[in-house]
Amino acid sequence: MKYSQLFGKTNKTAKEYDSKNATLLQKAGFIDQVMSGVYTYLPLGNRVLAKIEKIVREEMDKIGNEIFMPAIVPTDLWEQTDRLDSVDVLFKAVGANKASKLRNDAEYVLNSTHEEVVTPLAKKFSFSYKDFPFAVYQIQSKFRNEPRAKSGLMRGREFRMKDLYSFHTSEDDLLDYYFNVATPAYEKVYKRLGIGEDTVIALASGGDFTKEYSHEFQTLCETGEDTLFYVKSKDVYYNQEVAPSKAPIIEQDQEEKEIQDVFGEGVVSMEKLVKFLDIPAYKCVKTLIYKADEKVIVAAVRGDYEINEIKLKEILNCKHLELADKETVKKITGAEIGYAGIINLPDDIDIYIDDSIEPMKNFECGTNKTNFHTININWGRDIDKPDKFYDFKLAKEGDLYPETDEEYKIYTAAEVGNIFPLNTKFSDSFEYTFTDENGDEQPVYMGCYGIGTSRIMGVIAEKSNDENGLIWPTQIAPYHVHLMHIGEDDQIIKITEKLYKELHESKIEVLWDDRDTQAGEKFADADLIGIPVRLVISKRSLEKGGVEMKLRSETEADIVKMDDILKHVQNCL
Amino acid sequence: MKYSQLFGKTNKTAKEYDSKNATLLQKAGFIDQVMSGVYTYLPLGNRVLAKIEKIVREEMDKIGNEIFMPAIVPTDLWEQTDRLDSVDVLFKAVGANKASKLRNDAEYVLNSTHEEVVTPLAKKFSFSYKDFPFAVYQIQSKFRNEPRAKSGLMRGREFRMKDLYSFHTSEDDLLDYYFNVATPAYEKVYKRLGIGEDTVIALASGGDFTKEYSHEFQTLCETGEDTLFYVKSKDVYYNQEVAPSKAPIIEQDQEEKEIQDVFGEGVVSMEKLVKFLDIPAYKCVKTLIYKADEKVIVAAVRGDYEINEIKLKEILNCKHLELADKETVKKITGAEIGYAGIINLPDDIDIYIDDSIEPMKNFECGTNKTNFHTININWGRDIDKPDKFYDFKLAKEGDLYPETDEEYKIYTAAEVGNIFPLNTKFSDSFEYTFTDENGDEQPVYMGCYGIGTSRIMGVIAEKSNDENGLIWPTQIAPYHVHLMHIGEDDQIIKITEKLYKELHESKIEVLWDDRDTQAGEKFADADLIGIPVRLVISKRSLEKGGVEMKLRSETEADIVKMDDILKHVQNCL
Repeated sequence: MKYSQLFGKTNKTAKEYDSKNATLLQKAGFIDQVMSGVYTYLPLGNRVLAKIEKIVREEMDKIGNEIFMPAIVPTDLWEQTDRLDSVDVLFKAVGANKASKLRNDAEYVLNSTHEEVVTPLAKKFSFSYKDFPFAVYQIQSKFRNEPRAKSGLMRGREFRMKDLYSFHTSEDDLLDYYFNVATPAYEKVYKRLGIGEDTVIALASGGDFTKEYSHEFQTLCETGEDTLFYVKSKDVYYNQEVAPSKAPIIEQDQEEKEIQDVFGEGVVSMEKLVKFLDIPAYKCVKTLIYKADEKVIVAAVRGDYEINEIKLKEILNCKHLELADKETVKKITGAEIGYAGIINLPDDIDIYIDDSIEPMKNFECGTNKTNFHTININWGRDIDKPDKFYDFKLAKEGDLYPETDEEYKIYTAAEVGNIFPLNTKFSDSFEYTFTDENGDEQPVYMGCYGIGTSRIMGVIAEKSNDENGLIWPTQIAPYHVHLMHIGEDDQIIKITEKLYKELHESKIEVLWDDRDTQAGEKFADADLIGIPVRLVISKRSLEKGGVEMKLRSETEADIVKMDDILKHVQNCL
Repeated sequence: MKYSQLFGKTNKTAKEYDSKNATLLQKAGFIDQVMSGVYTYLPLGNRVLAKIEKIVREEMDKIGNEIFMPAIVPTDLWEQTDRLDSVDVLFKAVGANKASKLRNDAEYVLNSTHEEVVTPLAKKFSFSYKDFPFAVYQIQSKFRNEPRAKSGLMRGREFRMKDLYSFHTSEDDLLDYYFNVATPAYEKVYKRLGIGEDTVIALASGGDFTKEYSHEFQTLCETGEDTLFYVKSKDVYYNQEVAPSKAPIIEQDQEEKEIQDVFGEGVVSMEKLVKFLDIPAYKCVKTLIYKADEKVIVAAVRGDYEINEIKLKEILNCKHLELADKETVKKITGAEIGYAGIINLPDDIDIYIDDSIEPMKNFECGTNKTNFHTININWGRDIDKPDKFYDFKLAKEGDLYPETDEEYKIYTAAEVGNIFPLNTKFSDSFEYTFTDENGDEQPVYMGCYGIGTSRIMGVIAEKSNDENGLIWPTQIAPYHVHLMHIGEDDQIIKITEKLYKELHESKIEVLWDDRDTQAGEKFADADLIGIPVRLVISKRSLEKGGVEMKLRSETEADIVKMDDILKHVQNCL
């Protein structure tokens, strides 16, 4: 491809977007933002996306059948799983104007995920245990009604995704496929994409589907959205959302001080409180009133922690968990919001206390009286020590892995895939069963396996760059070679054109910057675009006997003889 | 691929769907209907679709840059072209439930076409005449809010489409690309898809964009939705919607009869009228009152014709044309709907009369008086003959091409592509101009070029089949070879497996029906699926010295020696 024929040029002065990947990819002419979270893939970006999807497709073809499901489907499919009203990222498609509604006023779901489509589909084609196991996948555009989408390709309202679904006669068979078929296939994908070495598997929440963990493939990346907690002795990564944690020991007072109620008008946040009382947050207790399904409960963590609602939900074994409203708080505590504590509570309320509070002495908590906090509370003396403490704090840096008491190592990372044991959640909704060897109806076990292909493009752009621009892994670079000539000498152009053709004929993908423009601009654009091999033909290079060759990932250039150039380039691919 | 591993089996007893392609493709396991006009592509269908899109992509890559635009975009893009409220197939995407709307209550257009996206995109990257011409294209899912979608893959609510857009500095340059670049590329596509010989170019309406024709690529097909009118001497096909036409001469009475008003209560349709008066429809005049933009006009054709509103609109040079409402008809004619005629009309009304009426004698028309029709009307005696007659009848079989007076040959056909000179319609809306050689701002000329890739799959299924099933052109068949063994003899299975591997290694795509099932069922499924080459290994074929080879398109099978089979198969591809 000649640069002069390429649609969508670099724009070095483009504005800064909300994320590094969006800024870099737009400056380099890979994508164009249509609106927040929605992009056009320009030719360079489209080539990268196509290469990512080709690799994903080749590996998925080994473990499943490719199909292609529709984006719009009847709403009743989503009603059957009770998700039509609850999935808060769901879009629907409706007639856009009066004329359209007059033609057809039906409404359709615009899928954010395809369990509701694939389950009834699979049901149509599998009946007996002999038809199992099997897996189908697709690569497709998905839609999510994101309120703010500020992470470039890493979080889109419309994005590309590969989703695979597997179907099994037992949980064992599901887990066998999950760990021994799908997981290695995913690892192969990331290896081929050039991010294998930096991609780890992290345990994450199983959501409503399973008590087990789901698994995320996370690429370590300084600007990633996720925090991983690594246990070295076990070689296990936890996503922060599920990391079990123990607070490191903090030295406590020797003596018990006198308990005291302190008047502080409007002191309702931890930030205000520590300032007002002039004590550290770890001397305080944060008490929150929750509605867990239909029941009201009290949960408390040490003041320097947040409550991890995923962990708390698991402990409470409830479906819905939300902070109680003002009226409920008042009813339970007798006070306005901001003064709840674990003392002076009604006898009949269930109180859950995080184990970070257990070793505390002379601690603070709300008095359950508006404008009052109590300090110097001590276990036994001022409040009965509960039989059981829990772990529902949001793990943070410095925390220990409870089982081994070793300190976590913390990584930031970006999710590039996730796999999920769905068990019988969706087959139950669609009454999807099979007949076993004894002629009995049994529920089908399912797993789902996602890879956001456009997200991966964003993650790699986010991760693989320097101050001059993008640095693409060879496997997904838009072209292999960025060729340019310096100077408008006819002879130089002729030699460049000859090499351009030779590279082409050798199936090496080459972008030739054929513009009559300054060398500096060509070099800057080449760095910005980030194609792995740069070849420069100039008077100087010819005098030195050939072509200047430089890898984008390195700083030094070499002169390579014209006759050897194909071989040299091929060695780099 | 082994048949036992293939998801989505044949279903010979599946119900009949609304179209032949939907029925055949579902019986053969290529697609699965999710709802009217919305399908899942099963592995076989997905392979066919992918092959069609690969061919389209390869040819389009020669004439444009591939990009990928989003399906959802801000509504203001469609407001700028004044199409948000008028395009009656348009969908919008909105939050599907309360929770979703709470997150983000914005609405987006779900594109049915991408002029509104590509025009502002192109504007960002082209400024000077030096940046032109250029073309970009994409292959993508599109959405149309069809009220009834009863033609299988030939008319979808969600469908796959390739759309290319070209950009030019002049109409001449646009037309040069249109006829000399895009048209040959399209012809190459259809040739490679195996429908080149049956695909013709037909002139069609230019819609609101241009006074010129647009061009449709139409594949001749008995069950097609379109009717083409062919002028042999000119070698030109017209879509019925724009075919100029002259009614063939019908012998008229010698004598003028006495004019007479006939009372006929409630005789308001041509069908009732001809029965009531016992005269043929070609002795009658059909008179309709229209609202053309803000003006009311009268239009009349001979009773056996329909009015072609596309042609009438062109003659009237109006933007909107619709039948007048009851009140307006009453005001103009003084009668209820159904009794309008070209006599007794107010002087100030414009009357347009089709040339089919010119030679008529003793003809009927409405009296413009409720329950009355007038018969034996004659030009000159009862009504002034107008200076000018028009051609706005819908052409029908037997009609003549006015220029040469030759009778049209009629074909039914299915559209497989269309190209459209958009001229400056969209660049005007987006104020998209370029700077010419003299530094002046000039409007950009655009063309658009569509191919419905899923539609093509439907058209080929509709066209290429016999009583036993589908017959795929080799280029887009899901596999090249349908291999099967007859009998569960170990030796036969071993030989079949060996051939399966050899075919595979020779890059021949093979589907092996490895089921332990009856020969009859295997043969029937092979015919239904329609893969071009069938290879059968059985005791009988081995005794005869090899493999039975049969082409799906032929009836006779041959025995081919095992050593020659690869060569024989390759010759068929």
